Parts: sequence; C-alpha cells; structure tokens
Amino acid sequence: MPTAAVIGGGVIGSAWASRFLLYGWDVRFYDPAANAEQILLAVLSKARRWAPQIVETLPAEGSLTMCTELADAVASADWVQESTPERIEVKHAVLRQIQAACQQAAIVGSSTSGFMPSELQEGSDRPEQILVAHPYNPVYLLPAVEVVPSPLVPVESVDRAEQILKGIGMKPIILKSEIPAHVGDRLLEAVWREALWLIKDGVATTEQIDDIMTHGFGLRWAQKGLFETYRTAGGEAGMKHFLEQFGPCLQWPWTKLTDVPELDDDLINLIVSQSDDQAAGRSVSELEEERDADLVAILRALRQQDRAAGAFLNQLAAGAGASG
Amino acid sequence: MPTAAVIGGGVIGSAWASRFLLYGWDVRFYDPAANAEQILLAVLSKARRWAPQIVETLPAEGSLTMCTELADAVASADWVQESTPERIEVKHAVLRQIQAACQQAAIVGSSTSGFMPSELQEGSDRPEQILVAHPYNPVYLLPAVEVVPSPLVPVESVDRAEQILKGIGMKPIILKSEIPAHVGDRLLEAVWREALWLIKDGVATTEQIDDIMTHGFGLRWAQKGLFETYRTAGGEAGMKHFLEQFGPCLQWPWTKLTDVPELDDDLINLIVSQSDDQAAGRSVSELEEERDADLVAILRALRQQDRAAGAFLNQLAAGAGASG
Repeated sequence: MPTAAVIGGGVIGSAWASRFLLYGWDVRFYDPAANAEQILLAVLSKARRWAPQIVETLPAEGSLTMCTELADAVASADWVQESTPERIEVKHAVLRQIQAACQQAAIVGSSTSGFMPSELQEGSDRPEQILVAHPYNPVYLLPAVEVVPSPLVPVESVDRAEQILKGIGMKPIILKSEIPAHVGDRLLEAVWREALWLIKDGVATTEQIDDIMTHGFGLRWAQKGLFETYRTAGGEAGMKHFLEQFGPCLQWPWTKLTDVPELDDDLINLIVSQSDDQAAGRSVSELEEERDADLVAILRALRQQDRAAGAFLNQLAAGAGASG
Repeated sequence: MPTAAVIGGGVIGSAWASRFLLYGWDVRFYDPAANAEQILLAVLSKARRWAPQIVETLPAEGSLTMCTELADAVASADWVQESTPERIEVKHAVLRQIQAACQQAAIVGSSTSGFMPSELQEGSDRPEQILVAHPYNPVYLLPAVEVVPSPLVPVESVDRAEQILKGIGMKPIILKSEIPAHVGDRLLEAVWREALWLIKDGVATTEQIDDIMTHGFGLRWAQKGLFETYRTAGGEAGMKHFLEQFGPCLQWPWTKLTDVPELDDDLINLIVSQSDDQAAGRSVSELEEERDADLVAILRALRQQDRAAGAFLNQLAAGAGASG
C-alpha cells in the first residue's frame, strides 16, 4: 500500500489527504493546529460524499493516521505533500524537517501557489527531491494540478510524480519552466487585479462581475479554454487570421490595463459589503454546498459529452489513470 | 409584433437576429456582404437546434426579412442592433445612417466590445438613443449581455432596454459607468495578455493553459464568479479576513504582471502551431459543435441545480423574463 504524508492541513492539505485516501493510499497527517483534525474530517466528509458521484470506480479507502510528530508522519512516505502557509521561511523550515526524516526516494510536493521550486529548494541538501504540485480548490473535485520541476529535478522524478498524481484522479499539467505563481495563478491574478479596479472605480459590483462570468465567459471556460475558444470563435478563416486581427487591438487604450490597486480599508469594506449583499444571508457552508453540487452536476454533464474534464473522468473510470 | 433591425451580420449579428426570431420578434436584416445571408442561415440553424434544449417554452418564431437598404431595415424597428466592424469611423457612419431612418422611440444598441457609448454618440443629433449592448459568443446560448448607457441615455430607455433583452432570454448587466471595453472584455484582455506571455516565454503551451482552465478554475466560473468563489474559499472567517490576506500579496513579485507583449509573426506562428496540434485535425465546425453541445449540457445540468445561469433559465421558462 503506498503511503502519503500530508504536512499542513487547512482546506488544501485536508483535501490532498482526502484524495490520497479515496484513491486507496494510506495517509499520515501532521498539522499541530488545534482545529486541524476537525477541518480534515469536515473536508474528508465532503470528499467522501461528492467524489464517488463523479468517479464510481474508487478503490477501498486507505487508512488515516494522525501523527503528533512531523518526522513520524513522513518516515515511510512515498509522497510528501507540504501545504503550510505561503511564507518562504515557513516553507524552508518545514521542508528541512521533512527532508531530515523522509526517504531519499520519496517525492516532496509543495502546494505553494507562488514560490518557484528553485526557491523552495534553497539551502536543501537534496534539492532534486522537491517540486511544486499546485492544485485547485476544491481539490477533492477539480482534477487540475500544476507540476513544476526546477532544472535540478530529474525527469524520472517528474514522470513518477505525473503517474502518482494521475493515480489519485488528477490531471497533471507539467510546466516547461518555473515562474513565480506558475500559470493558473498568474491568470487569476490578472483577473483579480482588473476586477479590483472595476469595483474601486464603481463600474460594476461584485455581483455584476460574477454574473458576467457565470452567465457569460465562465461557461465557456468550463468546456474549452482560452485558446480553443478563440480558435472556435475565429471561424474557418483560422487561428492565424484571428490572431492577426488581435495585433492592433493590443495597442488600443483598454489594453493599458490598470496598475496594482491599493487594497486599502475603503476598498476592502466596499468589496465586503457588496459580497455580503450578494450572499444574501447564505453562509459559507451553504455556498460550499452549492459549489460542490454544481461542480458535480457540471462534471457529470461533461462526462456524458465525454469531453474536457468529462473525458478525463471517463478515462479515469476506465482505469487508464490507475497507477501503483 | 415587435420588430428588430439587425445591422451587420457575421457571427455576432446573425446570432442577435436568431435570438430575436426565436423569441417571437420580426427581424429585418441588413448586411451588404456577399456571404452575409449564408452566415445568418448557418447561425440560425444552430440556434434553432440548440436554444430549445435549454428553454423549451419559446414562442412561435418571428418572420425574417432580408433588406437591401439599411433605411428600409430600420424604419419600423423597435430595437436596432448594430454589429459592424470594430472601427469607430465605421460605427459612426452606420449609426448616422441608422438614426437618419429609424424611429425616435427606437433603441439603438451596439455590440461593440471596446467603444464607450459616449464615443459612439459623438456627432449624433440624438445621442440619447444609442447605448452599448455587448453580448457573449455564442450569443444564441450565453445569456450575459452588458448594457452600458452614457450619462445622456435616460433611465427610462435603460429600463426598457433591460426589459426587451430579458424578453429575448438574455441576462442584462447594467453597468454603472462607461469605460473602454466595459467589464467582461477587460477581464478577458487581462487573461489574454498574460497568456500570450506564458506562450512567448515557453512556460506552457496553448493546450496546457487550456487544460488548467477546463480542469481547474474554468469549472469554478461556470457556477460561481470570482468574488463568490473567493468568499466560499475564504471559509467561515469571512470575506474581510480573506481580503486582508490578499493585501500583502499584491506587493509580491508575481503581481507585477507583464507589460503588453508584441504580437509579432514569431509569436503568432508559435500560437498557431500549438493550436493546430491541440485541435488534432478537428475543424472549426467540429469545435463549434462540441462547444454548443457541451454548453447545452452544462446549462441543463445547472437548470436542474436551479442556480447561476440555470436559475436564470428556469425563471425564463416560468415566464418571469417574458416581455412584450
């Protein structure tokens, strides 16, 4: 039975633990926070409820061990997943402890949304053991995971990481080079910054921006990404023709996107107040419940179409993604 | 029977015509291009096939008249929708012709993705008649439409525009102020620019970027927008706590997003070649077919959940969106 050590819980680490468990791995969990076990069990309960609705062929669940020492958690692990707070000194200290106690052959993945693997590897004796495995929340439902090796990570390790992640139902995207915030979070950051300006300048409310996404381009990106969407919209004249039209647009005024806005108290309060209005009394638990039920419905619909994430889940159910 | 004049066809204008027809409006269509009728009939055929699968309660279809003169097309129209090329001198010339022949009481909507209504209104005798109604492709399936009035447009006209757009199955989002590229395209532009850099710098391919979207955050945005997603992810500590964590992040290196990339021949060829690989021989018609079938599947799934675009379509089917 393969064993995963999950170091650092919270929403992300707990969902990693849930994924490994549901796909038959034994999990050794370490997080000294007082409420860590409570969060883990809540997330695991959601994962147990929803994951079988999109992949019916899950194996027998692995066993969960709560550890009180980090070294005890990682000692026998084949994969160690680090999901501690996004501060480089914390990451360095935890990675040092992990590498002092784990097997040389283990893969150490970090959930970092921002740091490059070479930054995480600084000061390590075995830098080649550490790579980025950055997932998307809710991790127990969304398959995407960005795998970012540094040049020091051997290709065999990247291949093994890819196989292991496929084995727990994930769609690994292996980036060709490291860059701060990888790929997905850079795109999200670009949207986030622009959205902050739109709120700050009073052009639209949080609810209006969300409506434009959920009734417009967000629907597109659930089934085709940016490039395939534009290829499709470009028509039979082809992608080259479409791109050549874009050239001049890049010089247009609205391409001068706004600079970093100051997220000061006024802007925070404005967003909070609009977001409260938008939630209309629904608690975060209720919002989570909505999100998960809707994601499952969308993924099941896409499975019937056998495309995008649906095709991936069908392959998974057929055993194509299984690994030891 | 209300009458719409559709001035300028192509993918967008033809889909406007289809929406009006399917929701019972008579449509007078004008586009001097040789292939305009062929495109219109192709789009209308798709709309007839797919739209009833997400809204079963469509009225009897209106009648379609192909006009050879712009003035003849707009003379009796209650709504005139302009979808000509995105060049201000073209828009001004066409709007001048429209206003010379249309009723004073008609609403003149522009599909412009970039120009502000006050720019469109320049030189007009009745500037208050013109507003932006910017839809999302495929217009016969996606409900979102940004309505942007200038300060000159009376509130009664905005209200009437909102009712009319609801009446043809659209979800109007009335922006609070005008800004180049409105809201949605600014967000798309931010993603597009960042994605171009990622391709140019060799960090990821078009297919990898698309996979991160369709197996990751794109799935999120089909059911909850940016702000509600973050509210949900932030947990019970609340939106304020979540935002306060973001403050320092805005100073982090990856928030210094890259500047406008030069979309030169090398970059165009790189994207075209990656996009060709990704399409793996599928024609644009096949991609469109996939897109529409998948969008319909997602929208039907969301209707069952009665949330986001699904809730909107349920209201529509119940007649809440109907208007005269």
